[in-house]
Amino acid sequence: MSADEKPVGVAVLGLGNVGSEVVGIIEDSADDLTARIGAPLVLRGVGVRRVAADRGVPVELLTDNIEELVAREDVDIVVEVMGPVEPARKAILSALEHGKSVVTANKALLSVSTGELAQAAENAHVDLYFEAAVAGAIPVIRPLTQSLAGDVVQRVVGIVNGTTNYILSEMDSTGADYHSALADASALGYAEADPTADVEGYDAAAKAAILASIAFHTRVTADDVYREGITHITPDDFASARALSCTIKLLCICERVEVDGQQRVSARVYPALVPLSHPLAAVNGAFNAVVVEAEAAGRLMFYGQGAGGAPTASAVTGDLVMAARNRVLGSRGPRESKYAQLPVLPIGLASTRYYVSMNVADKPGVLASVAAEFAKREVSIAEVRQEGVVNEGGQRVGARIVVVTHRATDGALSETVAALEDLDVVQTVASVLRLEGTD
Amino acid sequence: MSADEKPVGVAVLGLGNVGSEVVGIIEDSADDLTARIGAPLVLRGVGVRRVAADRGVPVELLTDNIEELVAREDVDIVVEVMGPVEPARKAILSALEHGKSVVTANKALLSVSTGELAQAAENAHVDLYFEAAVAGAIPVIRPLTQSLAGDVVQRVVGIVNGTTNYILSEMDSTGADYHSALADASALGYAEADPTADVEGYDAAAKAAILASIAFHTRVTADDVYREGITHITPDDFASARALSCTIKLLCICERVEVDGQQRVSARVYPALVPLSHPLAAVNGAFNAVVVEAEAAGRLMFYGQGAGGAPTASAVTGDLVMAARNRVLGSRGPRESKYAQLPVLPIGLASTRYYVSMNVADKPGVLASVAAEFAKREVSIAEVRQEGVVNEGGQRVGARIVVVTHRATDGALSETVAALEDLDVVQTVASVLRLEGTD
Repeated sequence: MSADEKPVGVAVLGLGNVGSEVVGIIEDSADDLTARIGAPLVLRGVGVRRVAADRGVPVELLTDNIEELVAREDVDIVVEVMGPVEPARKAILSALEHGKSVVTANKALLSVSTGELAQAAENAHVDLYFEAAVAGAIPVIRPLTQSLAGDVVQRVVGIVNGTTNYILSEMDSTGADYHSALADASALGYAEADPTADVEGYDAAAKAAILASIAFHTRVTADDVYREGITHITPDDFASARALSCTIKLLCICERVEVDGQQRVSARVYPALVPLSHPLAAVNGAFNAVVVEAEAAGRLMFYGQGAGGAPTASAVTGDLVMAARNRVLGSRGPRESKYAQLPVLPIGLASTRYYVSMNVADKPGVLASVAAEFAKREVSIAEVRQEGVVNEGGQRVGARIVVVTHRATDGALSETVAALEDLDVVQTVASVLRLEGTD
Repeated sequence: MSADEKPVGVAVLGLGNVGSEVVGIIEDSADDLTARIGAPLVLRGVGVRRVAADRGVPVELLTDNIEELVAREDVDIVVEVMGPVEPARKAILSALEHGKSVVTANKALLSVSTGELAQAAENAHVDLYFEAAVAGAIPVIRPLTQSLAGDVVQRVVGIVNGTTNYILSEMDSTGADYHSALADASALGYAEADPTADVEGYDAAAKAAILASIAFHTRVTADDVYREGITHITPDDFASARALSCTIKLLCICERVEVDGQQRVSARVYPALVPLSHPLAAVNGAFNAVVVEAEAAGRLMFYGQGAGGAPTASAVTGDLVMAARNRVLGSRGPRESKYAQLPVLPIGLASTRYYVSMNVADKPGVLASVAAEFAKREVSIAEVRQEGVVNEGGQRVGARIVVVTHRATDGALSETVAALEDLDVVQTVASVLRLEGTD
């Protein structure tokens, strides 16, 4: 094993933040990478939409013919960091069919096409690595697929979207409303011009699909993930959270659940109350963290920067070095593991705790009527608080009831909320939030 | 790839806490492990000192002839969880020479013999895995060797010994002195009958050697690690720490340092002040955590249970599955990477910040004399506090000076302390502690 080995050829697709950082590392760390791989890593070309002299890469390395680039004989590994789903899908499939190993950070693609890509990699006997697709630089995929390969993962709960975590942290610490916190995030470059994928939870749901797939050896796609965004969260919700010693986080939750004697997978993304004593409550700003609970290992937590050019490039280059080393050694990394094929649990059967706040008529018997609706559907109440609502002049103008439940299914809770809304004594159900991280 | 494949034979050496858990997982999770490996995993034998019917494993699987067990034709992988350095070393070398892949949790052995074991694995073209040797169930080895394979690791700082962390957490939260906190740790099973390896930092130093080796692609042994234990830490030290908004942790620190234009490795273990705002300050009780700082990835943290039968068995079994999967696929995992061979920095050249507390004469000019000794050796003072020392009757009986320095070398600080001790106006230097986790 030495630098005299036949070089390993790399094609990078995409020259945005991440792509530029990856190209920079390949050049700046050439000696180190050669020593770690056992052969030199040579950049054969960079696939871009716009070939020009001002891209920071020698223009002769640039090409807009991606189909040709991924098929080149002297390319061994293709690094895809261009997104979105198409044309990335087509390029990756073509690369795999030409026998190239592939490294990708494309969570949107992976969460809809894992099976297809994994099968193509399998057919070609090459590697498909995607550590950067979830939580940027934080190693999560490798620990789940390798370090925990002998354990039984029960649960993966994470803050995997930096944009929404920045917005929620800002709302919590400054009392800002959603729109001004989003504006701050945009000004700082933490939110995109169209923030839909982040704030509506699509990005987190894609990561949930990937995490659930590898944690439970089951193919889970983005469509299998229940998803709610953060756009309806208000400063009042944060005030209520504080009263319960909680904060609010957009969580990605992947669980192994036994229902009627059968193991199932639940994957869901929604904003939830999290007790301040929970390790995820302290994860603020654009940081990400993932908590894994496994039978023998207990609770593990991984924390770091979940996005950004350099951190994502670190994860991509780690995969690139591993894929290159495998090429040199004639080895292969772990393949897709989907043997368990657990069915996905419908959200109605998922169970957690809930916080329900409602404005009610200020007269006797209201609490009894409200409590009866919970009882009818076997939703057990853990805490209840009734308080007067006063107007600006200090006059009592109504009452509010806040209920925190024990664990109940989403179905039972939804029915209860619908019934509460139909009660004459309930004016509005102001807020329903899930409470995670307690028993 | 299916369960019809030729089985992968396993020998487990040692049937203590970890060994029993590993054997239990191999049996209880047989179907899952088969699916993940692509072939059945079959326990061929367990090496023990005492063969008896009451060991929880069918007696016909037990043997005290370890030499014969590791050489058996139907054994592909040897799991060594018996410790200590010998006879483990001999057994592992013999297993490797017979072409078996090896999984070990033996940090004491690895920290003195990594090179020898890695070379033997290399000669035999087999795997040598040791995720469980550092921080139990927490994936640290694999993230460093694989996920960060394309990055430049600058620093690894960890709490990697649960016994001392339990003792220090107890001293901090209850005000207990070292001896009573140690007694509590023993009563709870967190400290061994002879706690020397833990409380004197030998265990943490072994882990520091392993972490420094893989983080910096350099062979570092336990002898290269500067080491101080926690037996001299007093409740007064914790009171001083609190006054500085710090706590005290036994840290394992591995750093890439540039001295005179040359990159070097510093590896050291000592109790240090850590600001309460630092993520490691919140790691309490028997938990472990490792913070990794890398050029592109930024700061990552890994947290979980660093010891105990089940968590350690999780890490061991993860390695076992990977080694078995490699056997089935004809692949190999990453090999030792030692190309950088950076020289080890002597402790005298390592630089950090310091806290120095001294009892002094209560008269004019003392502070000037003390400050002069720091200045002479170019140790810059960041904060200084002089206060009266009062006796139980409330009478002022002397004075105390507390100094917090900016970064200085250990050598300059040691000289300064020696000079202070020689000053007439200094009665005693009561405490010298390093301050880590600030700039």
